[in-house]
Amino acid sequence: MSFWVSGRRVLVTGGLGFIGSNLVRKLLDLGAKVRVVDCLRSGDGGNRFNLKDVDGQYELIDGSLEHRAVTETAVDGCDVVFHMAGKVSHIDSLARPLEDLIDNAATTVAILDACRRLNPSARIVIAGTRQVYGTPLRLPVSEDHPLRPPDFNAVSKIAAEYYARVASERLGLSTLVLRLTNVYGPRQLVSHSRASFTGWFIRQALLGETIDLFGSGLQYRDLLYVDDAVNAFILAAEKLPGNGEAWNCGTEEPVSLAEFAEMLVRLAGTGEVRRIPFPPERKQIDIGDFSTDSSRLRAVTGWNPRIGLEEGLRRTVEFYRLFGDHYWSATS
Amino acid sequence: MSFWVSGRRVLVTGGLGFIGSNLVRKLLDLGAKVRVVDCLRSGDGGNRFNLKDVDGQYELIDGSLEHRAVTETAVDGCDVVFHMAGKVSHIDSLARPLEDLIDNAATTVAILDACRRLNPSARIVIAGTRQVYGTPLRLPVSEDHPLRPPDFNAVSKIAAEYYARVASERLGLSTLVLRLTNVYGPRQLVSHSRASFTGWFIRQALLGETIDLFGSGLQYRDLLYVDDAVNAFILAAEKLPGNGEAWNCGTEEPVSLAEFAEMLVRLAGTGEVRRIPFPPERKQIDIGDFSTDSSRLRAVTGWNPRIGLEEGLRRTVEFYRLFGDHYWSATS
Repeated sequence: MSFWVSGRRVLVTGGLGFIGSNLVRKLLDLGAKVRVVDCLRSGDGGNRFNLKDVDGQYELIDGSLEHRAVTETAVDGCDVVFHMAGKVSHIDSLARPLEDLIDNAATTVAILDACRRLNPSARIVIAGTRQVYGTPLRLPVSEDHPLRPPDFNAVSKIAAEYYARVASERLGLSTLVLRLTNVYGPRQLVSHSRASFTGWFIRQALLGETIDLFGSGLQYRDLLYVDDAVNAFILAAEKLPGNGEAWNCGTEEPVSLAEFAEMLVRLAGTGEVRRIPFPPERKQIDIGDFSTDSSRLRAVTGWNPRIGLEEGLRRTVEFYRLFGDHYWSATS
Repeated sequence: MSFWVSGRRVLVTGGLGFIGSNLVRKLLDLGAKVRVVDCLRSGDGGNRFNLKDVDGQYELIDGSLEHRAVTETAVDGCDVVFHMAGKVSHIDSLARPLEDLIDNAATTVAILDACRRLNPSARIVIAGTRQVYGTPLRLPVSEDHPLRPPDFNAVSKIAAEYYARVASERLGLSTLVLRLTNVYGPRQLVSHSRASFTGWFIRQALLGETIDLFGSGLQYRDLLYVDDAVNAFILAAEKLPGNGEAWNCGTEEPVSLAEFAEMLVRLAGTGEVRRIPFPPERKQIDIGDFSTDSSRLRAVTGWNPRIGLEEGLRRTVEFYRLFGDHYWSATS
């Protein structure tokens, strides 16, 4: 792993969230000086327990990027900004699109505008999503695949991407976006089913409940263990150009939801798997099979996912067996 | 002209603005029941004088679409919603991107979400912009040209387009977008130079000032007289599918900025034209030559622009000679 971040001042927005907190922990391991901004919006995955054992080793700004003073304080003096805060629920975005727009696009604008004014040399790495592609026209999906957002969450994330691009091209900021595939692992939100099927399945298996697979359960998704996603962010900050481009971050080897659920139940030793018809509100935003062509990211950064599904799930099961009580009903 | 709107209840957001107020006047002529919502944001082109002579013939909601109660009241019971409110300044969007995002994308989300909840059968026609294409890769520009936003204003308008698309595909709303080229004519903002070169040139000619052409003055743009743009909106509401698509609205016959300025000075009998080097902050967001392939819009709606440049400018000069005092220093 790279030591480029050692000694650097790094901001992680959404640093109490799933990927954000895992990133913070890795950055601390690597010797970075870490600042976190997080407003612990209810239901979005932020959880104080995610960083409880490293309290005092990082600076916490407890506030919302909607407030200009918070954003300015957050970006001030940072060498690198990882913008991980935001909403990920496709379902919620259709019911409450304005909140989704504010938390994804407006926070990105706020970060970029604050950097323009106060910290124009910062490296700005933005968490994007493969959801911007919608239902794939071909597999694996490469970056030149058309953007066909299937829900409002994908729209706000597309807007964030374009903001990053224009901020680089017109304002000279150093920006880039990683379009993440499904990520799973320790510290993921597992308290409701609207965010990610991975977290929800993990909850159900560990609590001895029944995992409902929609339809055949043979929808294929490429899955990334959170440590591999974190490594991609750190390598991206060091090695990718800051020209506002978006880079795929996923794998070309998808697994079926059924395979994921069954392996999970086997490793957990609890829970069971059942197949049910597709609920209409899920079907309408389902994107079918997905796998990611990340060859550009791999070629430029040397990144490669290292943790296979079985090992990733083993670690995840172990984490929630130990600490699940801090997650089952957590709303922030 | 179509009488489809006769007797229908029609909302025009930004109805005190340039295109909005011309649209309101035409809708009243055609016998529609018109409601206007406008918050007269300073510098955005809203002007009470635009509808002063028809006061009492329409319903005015004096409020911002940022407030949920305003938006709900506005869309309630309307058969057609023309969403004309928003920011158009490319320059301002780079300096104050958050305001631009709110006024363009968040207002669109607010309208769509209010219609989803209260008025799901409304026809929703959204004012878009050819700025979403950025610097053209080929001319004339058709709808399948890539989106390459050159500034934050284009990003917020792209987001608005995607919201309209998803609202149709996922929520079943009837939405469409007209990507407008440069529009000129009576009631345009002429009080500052950050919105549109057409309004600024008109001001300078009529006030006997010097029109500065950047560079050669041979940048070509297709220009639409406001009555032709208004007719396109009304025909679009009647005849286009509500599947969230964006339709070009412009002409394939561009004129140079020099030709526009020189004709204007000749018709006004005042002002003069001078060529100066391109200011850097303008050059960086200039998109070069532009002309619009509107063949899809023409084929489906029968729309055709009818007012040539000389006639359009003659009417515009006449308007500002009579009423310019209400516009030269208007900020709202």
